[in-house]
Amino acid sequence: MTTHHPTDVIEPDDEHLLAEPAEDVELSSAQLDVEALKQWQLGRWAEIRQEARELAAQEELIKIEGLPMAEHRERVLQQLQILVDANAVHRAFPSELGGNNDPGGNIAGFTELVIADPSLQIKAGVQWGLFGAAVLHLGTESHHRRFLPGIMDLSVPGAFAMTEIGHGSDVSAIGTTATYDPQTQEFVLHTPFRAATKEYLGNAALHGKDAVVFAQLITQGVNHGVHCFYAHLRDDQGNMLPGVRSEDDGLKGGLNGIDNGRLAFDQVRIPRDYLLNRYADVAEDGTYSSDIASPGRRFFTMLGTLVQGRVSLDGSSVVAAKIGLAAALRYAEQRRQFTTDSDIEEQLLLDYQLHQKRLLPRLAKTIAMGFAHEELLTKFHEVFSGENDTDENRQDLETMAAALKPQSTWHALDTLQEAREACGGAGFMAENRFASLRADLDIYVTFEGDNNVLLQLVAKRLLGDFADEFKTFNFGTISKFVAGHAREAVYYRSGLSRWMQAVADTGSERKSANWFKNDDVQHGLLSSRVETMVNAVGSKLMTVAKADPATQARTFNQNQVELIEMAKAHADLITWEAFTRALERLPQSAGEETVQVLRWVRDLYALTVIEENLDWYLMNGRISVNRARTLGSYINRLLHRIRPFTQELVDSFGLEDRHLRSTVATNAESVRQQEAAEYYRQLRASADAPVAEKSLKKK
Amino acid sequence: MTTHHPTDVIEPDDEHLLAEPAEDVELSSAQLDVEALKQWQLGRWAEIRQEARELAAQEELIKIEGLPMAEHRERVLQQLQILVDANAVHRAFPSELGGNNDPGGNIAGFTELVIADPSLQIKAGVQWGLFGAAVLHLGTESHHRRFLPGIMDLSVPGAFAMTEIGHGSDVSAIGTTATYDPQTQEFVLHTPFRAATKEYLGNAALHGKDAVVFAQLITQGVNHGVHCFYAHLRDDQGNMLPGVRSEDDGLKGGLNGIDNGRLAFDQVRIPRDYLLNRYADVAEDGTYSSDIASPGRRFFTMLGTLVQGRVSLDGSSVVAAKIGLAAALRYAEQRRQFTTDSDIEEQLLLDYQLHQKRLLPRLAKTIAMGFAHEELLTKFHEVFSGENDTDENRQDLETMAAALKPQSTWHALDTLQEAREACGGAGFMAENRFASLRADLDIYVTFEGDNNVLLQLVAKRLLGDFADEFKTFNFGTISKFVAGHAREAVYYRSGLSRWMQAVADTGSERKSANWFKNDDVQHGLLSSRVETMVNAVGSKLMTVAKADPATQARTFNQNQVELIEMAKAHADLITWEAFTRALERLPQSAGEETVQVLRWVRDLYALTVIEENLDWYLMNGRISVNRARTLGSYINRLLHRIRPFTQELVDSFGLEDRHLRSTVATNAESVRQQEAAEYYRQLRASADAPVAEKSLKKK
Repeated sequence: MTTHHPTDVIEPDDEHLLAEPAEDVELSSAQLDVEALKQWQLGRWAEIRQEARELAAQEELIKIEGLPMAEHRERVLQQLQILVDANAVHRAFPSELGGNNDPGGNIAGFTELVIADPSLQIKAGVQWGLFGAAVLHLGTESHHRRFLPGIMDLSVPGAFAMTEIGHGSDVSAIGTTATYDPQTQEFVLHTPFRAATKEYLGNAALHGKDAVVFAQLITQGVNHGVHCFYAHLRDDQGNMLPGVRSEDDGLKGGLNGIDNGRLAFDQVRIPRDYLLNRYADVAEDGTYSSDIASPGRRFFTMLGTLVQGRVSLDGSSVVAAKIGLAAALRYAEQRRQFTTDSDIEEQLLLDYQLHQKRLLPRLAKTIAMGFAHEELLTKFHEVFSGENDTDENRQDLETMAAALKPQSTWHALDTLQEAREACGGAGFMAENRFASLRADLDIYVTFEGDNNVLLQLVAKRLLGDFADEFKTFNFGTISKFVAGHAREAVYYRSGLSRWMQAVADTGSERKSANWFKNDDVQHGLLSSRVETMVNAVGSKLMTVAKADPATQARTFNQNQVELIEMAKAHADLITWEAFTRALERLPQSAGEETVQVLRWVRDLYALTVIEENLDWYLMNGRISVNRARTLGSYINRLLHRIRPFTQELVDSFGLEDRHLRSTVATNAESVRQQEAAEYYRQLRASADAPVAEKSLKKK
Repeated sequence: MTTHHPTDVIEPDDEHLLAEPAEDVELSSAQLDVEALKQWQLGRWAEIRQEARELAAQEELIKIEGLPMAEHRERVLQQLQILVDANAVHRAFPSELGGNNDPGGNIAGFTELVIADPSLQIKAGVQWGLFGAAVLHLGTESHHRRFLPGIMDLSVPGAFAMTEIGHGSDVSAIGTTATYDPQTQEFVLHTPFRAATKEYLGNAALHGKDAVVFAQLITQGVNHGVHCFYAHLRDDQGNMLPGVRSEDDGLKGGLNGIDNGRLAFDQVRIPRDYLLNRYADVAEDGTYSSDIASPGRRFFTMLGTLVQGRVSLDGSSVVAAKIGLAAALRYAEQRRQFTTDSDIEEQLLLDYQLHQKRLLPRLAKTIAMGFAHEELLTKFHEVFSGENDTDENRQDLETMAAALKPQSTWHALDTLQEAREACGGAGFMAENRFASLRADLDIYVTFEGDNNVLLQLVAKRLLGDFADEFKTFNFGTISKFVAGHAREAVYYRSGLSRWMQAVADTGSERKSANWFKNDDVQHGLLSSRVETMVNAVGSKLMTVAKADPATQARTFNQNQVELIEMAKAHADLITWEAFTRALERLPQSAGEETVQVLRWVRDLYALTVIEENLDWYLMNGRISVNRARTLGSYINRLLHRIRPFTQELVDSFGLEDRHLRSTVATNAESVRQQEAAEYYRQLRASADAPVAEKSLKKK
């Protein structure tokens, strides 16, 4: 029996593909325009990034490996003050308060701080990106006037008290209450049981003087859901205020420069105007009011500021991956191991096919994710600067952040690990930073939105675009997370039509392995995967669109794995699109060769993603068996083509030795090899050079 | 156009598969015989494992997280003395020296030490498994008499000085020389250049008094290749001896209880009889002699003792994966998050399909790898106890260790990471150990044989079985690593024939998704993958069998990625076989249900491996497109079936709280939830319970 698929029409005469001469010029002797590539990747906020890198290279800001936790925490607190003094952390705040009204530039600078020490970065994120941002975005003018100056100049370090022991991803279910008492015109903050203790909060264990606290707002006998309150934790001597209890989380898998801890409140009274009241308020008599009628929508509006953290982690992960790759690839260009013959020089690691396959696709992904981040950051800037703050753009921003942050944070861990392994034992030494960076970034995959929860939000949004029914569908696990609303799914439909054109194409392309390098083919393959999955899962879920919530949730759960895959496929697609758009921005003045090599890198990104999901493409008839068989060798050919330019690509990251701070990234290995080679040269020239037993036997 | 594959003959009527009722009994209410499962997994050396676990739970042996490096190193040294006093580390040594002649039991006990602290384990491995084992296996009686007592009782801590800065995997290329001086009847140990400095040696930075040193033996003007010498490093006060230089590697990504460091020798003279002369000797006049004529074969014979380290790491990785899984799965059985409706209890993590998909296949792999390790350890015991010390069995042992160690060490990292992520923020806390264990085990994937280098050895062996030509083939990268010799490839041929039978089968199996649960089908799919890849790569390499070494090496390199895949496929196959053979050992007295559930676990292992390589099966016509489409849902069905038994499966590991030492593995989460539930119950019952705004709006 045979299989029939409507799309399985392209059947190249693949047997000849490998013998076919490459039609692209071989460029191994060309030189790339590294400076053009660098500016291209630094993007819109190049200047701020460069400034931040200057800062991040300063001795007093860099991580000291192995510092005991207590000293590391103290050092990072002092580093935050250095950032304040350098004017490095106020860009997002309004100019009237001493900021720059530049939310995009703020994140651009912030992401580069990962170079210095992820603890420093995240503690800065807690202070200004979460604690300060909550006051800015959820508070009103009087809060800004009263609280922001101290937050900005770090005289008031603070915690962002949202997560509880019992509830992380499902914020709406937190247990802390803020009950309004009209007698005294105060809210009573209270932790009613152990699981409602605030948990994992930076600044909570030691340094936090104040906090923003998320709690169920109860007034006049009604629970209006989660709202954000300002609260004092410690006096100026650092003593806990009455009713506030703090516990230290102690040692963690990484980020030990941050004093994470727990906070609990025992009937702590705060003034009525400590409610950050931009979206809702309580009058003196306890009357609740809000411009946003729907409690769900109100909740998600208030949580909207969280997107900043996701955007930041996405960008930081790309920077961290670049550090790891730069070090491992510089080493691979120097380190030699094994030879075919004792008279022949040993082979460079990077000339091994396996080594190329381990590192170059990750290089391509990292560059691709850099451009995806640039688009995400631009969208973030549009929304938060007010340039284009529409509901739709805000929702696109949230979906995009939810799609990219999981992919890039996982990618950073994967890349740092592969880079460490690619350097063998040297990769394990603290002086080469791989393990340290990886340990610090580990938590990025589950904080500011657990990756798998975020991907479900993406899936929900994709389904919402697929059919109106899903706007009210009970998604169970994530039902309360995002208020999805209608939008035409123009995107995928247009993707499909372009793809249909690509596969229907006839003529010379048919018989060529070069099919895979066609933009339309790549886009068609990536977009049809999303579209097909949305259709498939959507159709399955549609069968229960009228069922009770429990049935809907159960059906959702039975397709959860596929929903996650669908969301990842979406992230892959928008990453590819961002890279492809970026190619158009690469100045022609960089020269043809540079453009060509970067197109190969983009192709390598696309084909790596397609190879990772090749079973899907085969099962869904999107790639024929014969075509699929050529993919591996086509990728190997790309690796071979890109390999001569690896060093220039790495240089184009613009990361200098003072940023990498990694011995394997220096020329130490080359120097040692030269010394060894010189020893053997002199030995061979001398009279008393020993003869190898092996060569004696041959004679 | 359509595709034709000779084997693509099985085309079930798959559309009906999902609707088809499961033919197995649903067992969700059954109870497993946990004790039987525990004994079954503890295996041949159950008693020794239990003793080691008792030891590993002792307060003074367990890792203290966050201990500064200097204190951790000191603590671990003292712990080694505790192991000596407990008679826990001498099992492999001859009984006349106070050992037990029990190499298998020794490793079994050793692997369990990872429970206490991987630093303790590896430092013990350095002292007795490398330093001591080298004296035992490469030395002769006088060495045993002189050196082993001090090594065994730890009065002489020592280093195993093989790796150099410049050469890790390629030991034959090390630069350290041992030149014989007949005038004084001494060897002169010398480090001729920086790259020849010994590197990453445990006990080198601080504690090592003596060492075994691998160096090029030069006498009478001939270099006889790498040999092993005994040397003194420090005097009794800990001062370096003249000419010996030590440097501290400092902080590492993990295992910071071990004082890794570098050693260099400046014309250090050692007596002639410090050559460990079991396989080669130098007479007083400098005449070299060896029973093994071939220098290559001699080298590999001397390196044969290294297999012990690989066997140990394989077993230790399985234990570590069990710790991570036990903790994450106990948490997943308690932790609830998200609900479809505020009136309904939140859902257990482990009831989410995604959570099952993340953890249960890893559980199945871990159990499978446990049985593969048991077979490896048995073979190791046969060879090293002399029970069956043939060349062939020794070579099988080396191939098996080279295949299993990469898979299990990578699996441990992957599993510990997934387990950590599956516990969210809690997973990142040091108190839950995931990150700490993962950091310590990180280096397991590149030491005692880099995983990718070991897999190439396996590939070489598989090709050697495929065709005689490969016995002299120049494999370039790994040519000097293993002396392959002829053996009938009966294995794969028999595998093929059984598989052909399975796919040629007709009748009711054809139309059933249960095809996948058939032993012959699973074995056929797994073995045909190895066999087909060996044939494919073998045929490609055969075309250059007569070419010059450089061409051969280049061709090898062009197929390197595929060779690695082939070796992994081989490891998957032997792991499956070990699990399947183990099923036959599961006592019937455990009850039908227990046997059935463990068969599902075995099926889950097989189908997970097949799903991971599904693109290959499709491209090679081993699984039809329609059949492949049913695989995902068949696996989901297995997850659903196994899920009710997860806790009992975890319990069958026999790891108690004192071994797991992880808060999430306790019932703390349940207790907190009960407290919260009680609070809400009382609140609902009280007069002043707040009403949710949402429910007000509905009215």
